[in-house]
Amino acid sequence: MMKDIAFTCDMEVRDYECDLQGIVNNSVYQNYLEHTRHTYIKSLGLDFAVLSEKGINLVVKRVEIDYQTPLKRGDEFTSVLKMERLSPLRFGFVQHIYRIPDNKLVIKALVVGTAINQRGRPELPDDLIKVWGLD
Amino acid sequence: MMKDIAFTCDMEVRDYECDLQGIVNNSVYQNYLEHTRHTYIKSLGLDFAVLSEKGINLVVKRVEIDYQTPLKRGDEFTSVLKMERLSPLRFGFVQHIYRIPDNKLVIKALVVGTAINQRGRPELPDDLIKVWGLD
Amino acid sequence: MMKDIAFTCDMEVRDYECDLQGIVNNSVYQNYLEHTRHTYIKSLGLDFAVLSEKGINLVVKRVEIDYQTPLKRGDEFTSVLKMERLSPLRFGFVQHIYRIPDNKLVIKALVVGTAINQRGRPELPDDLIKVWGLD
Amino acid sequence: MMKDIAFTCDMEVRDYECDLQGIVNNSVYQNYLEHTRHTYIKSLGLDFAVLSEKGINLVVKRVEIDYQTPLKRGDEFTSVLKMERLSPLRFGFVQHIYRIPDNKLVIKALVVGTAINQRGRPELPDDLIKVWGLD
Repeated sequence: MMKDIAFTCDMEVRDYECDLQGIVNNSVYQNYLEHTRHTYIKSLGLDFAVLSEKGINLVVKRVEIDYQTPLKRGDEFTSVLKMERLSPLRFGFVQHIYRIPDNKLVIKALVVGTAINQRGRPELPDDLIKVWGLD
Repeated sequence: MMKDIAFTCDMEVRDYECDLQGIVNNSVYQNYLEHTRHTYIKSLGLDFAVLSEKGINLVVKRVEIDYQTPLKRGDEFTSVLKMERLSPLRFGFVQHIYRIPDNKLVIKALVVGTAINQRGRPELPDDLIKVWGLD
Repeated sequence: MMKDIAFTCDMEVRDYECDLQGIVNNSVYQNYLEHTRHTYIKSLGLDFAVLSEKGINLVVKRVEIDYQTPLKRGDEFTSVLKMERLSPLRFGFVQHIYRIPDNKLVIKALVVGTAINQRGRPELPDDLIKVWGLD
Repeated sequence: MMKDIAFTCDMEVRDYECDLQGIVNNSVYQNYLEHTRHTYIKSLGLDFAVLSEKGINLVVKRVEIDYQTPLKRGDEFTSVLKMERLSPLRFGFVQHIYRIPDNKLVIKALVVGTAINQRGRPELPDDLIKVWGLD
């Protein structure tokens, strides 16, 4: 069920993302995670807007984040993503962020999504399942 | 030309808006200014989305901000807005932010806007001019 | 263990918090949740900065958010918080957001925290436990 | 007075930076501009935190932004920075953002700063003037 090949993208902390203590604010990690997911989906030749026009809306149902080591200003990091099928109608983005260069785990997250069809019902189209390697 | 009655709205600094030095990040003031403009427009019974459907897009052309005294975490402030007609096709939001309770000036700003019609040309509709008291 | 009296605070969606689809971006809810926690802690006469000077750092270890109904531009909402003791060294902020005026559940969240002492070890000071009603 | 060699850095629009209309929110450009300035300063071997410990605080006094062409989701862009001395005590970051690959001008900005010494007075240290090529 777990796609073996992971998608990775490197980023760096921007100063305006840091809070009073000089560390990245908790909510900013969701921005990093979202940017990684969207870049991943784009890398597969898919696009939210185009999917949406076809009547397929990808929706986040649940987010779980474990905070291990805070990123600080100036830090660079690698954001890693794997796909997992959680149920016939739900998929999971298993996401980790590692600090560069010591590979220390920053956060691990599970983002649970589904696809909603035009009648507002969950429906995972076959081509999404295939392109994500979830079949 | 300057509308005498000013629109005001009170807000408070949220911790996640502060940076490393415990003061509000420079870019966050633009969020405060935008929220004030949109609340003002809403208070007149207007709505961006509805105007847009009618083919009138309000567009920001230029922003000038003078930073006087930084807001700090925990601070409350009053955001004040006045309208000014700058030219036949341009209007200005003259915006000030004052710290509560000592009324110290935090920033003063001029936000220059225009309205774009469906052919992509600047056009200030008469009813906007009237409702903004710019006639 | 569950504190009976809940803390609530009312807020409204700001346009700049909405994404392409006109709904509040997933990560923005964490800002709402954080602002609610900080306002709650302030309402108890406590302050992060002062606690930090005393050598007590409050740290978020885990966040779980279930997304039920998206907030849209113009929406107002009530943010509700209850405290729960999860273990000798961990406490939970049980947080819900309800849309105004129909009380529809927007998100429910569990934010797990701990307090770190000056030696970098988890330690829940007795006065925090008391003021939070977790004893 | 104008430093001939410009500093440039390439970035891309992230989906969460776009608003209801699918274009980058006006305030987000200040984040891009700040990130460019901080990356530039870092590239000179300087650091805000270290300067601050030496008693030199760099402060933004004024921002002017002209909006020409909005960036849209998926766009990449080049952020260009030049330094200019505006007065004995004030320097300017002359900043432009160009869309990739057609080099269309997105915004042009002038960010006016000064350095504040430990007595809270503007004071431009000689080594800053030299490293910025403003002498």
